Amino acid sequence: MPVRHADSVPREPVEPGRRTSRQVLIGPDEAPNFALRRFTMQPGGGIPAHTNTVEHEQYVLRGRAKIGIADEVVEVKPDDAVYIPVGVPHWYRVEGDEPFVFLCIVPNAPDKMELLGA
Amino acid sequence: MPVRHADSVPREPVEPGRRTSRQVLIGPDEAPNFALRRFTMQPGGGIPAHTNTVEHEQYVLRGRAKIGIADEVVEVKPDDAVYIPVGVPHWYRVEGDEPFVFLCIVPNAPDKMELLGA
Repeated sequence: MPVRHADSVPREPVEPGRRTSRQVLIGPDEAPNFALRRFTMQPGGGIPAHTNTVEHEQYVLRGRAKIGIADEVVEVKPDDAVYIPVGVPHWYRVEGDEPFVFLCIVPNAPDKMELLGA
Repeated sequence: MPVRHADSVPREPVEPGRRTSRQVLIGPDEAPNFALRRFTMQPGGGIPAHTNTVEHEQYVLRGRAKIGIADEVVEVKPDDAVYIPVGVPHWYRVEGDEPFVFLCIVPNAPDKMELLGA
């Protein structure tokens, strides 16, 4: 690929997300160091608190959400950049009645996701 | 930072770009593996043909442009993902009368940009 329109990329459901799907726009089999993915969370959706063994660099494209990062809760909107370091607990909850859409870039490394208790 | 609004990040001119600026949204001093930058090219702007020693993963946010990648020319629009491997000649030219805005993620590695002859 040199170019791929995001809307043409298949969506896969994200567990344990609610109403959340992921599209791999540039995958670990296509580029050597990191993968570009797009997440869409429908209204009412989100992902409960968890940790990962890879860091996340994110960019909000559309919609609004609350994101918990460690002990902080931030409300994000389009054109916000978000950084979640390795091992830091985080969660997502869509705000409002529009889908929340964001890019999430992760290194090409094994990720172990661990859900945290309620 | 957990969150940073892109519009609050200073712009630096990109040489040898024309009417082109760069904002470092998440820099190599903040995250271990790759940097998230946003480029804005005003109408009439672009970057001439060159190579880099780091790959680019890109996502178009606004506007339209023609991008030359190796021997191919593609016209890109919002929500297009673009991959430019290490060492592949590429150039950018804004199309239309709106700014062309895109994200460009690169690994945290030294980059040597080499301009190519006209």
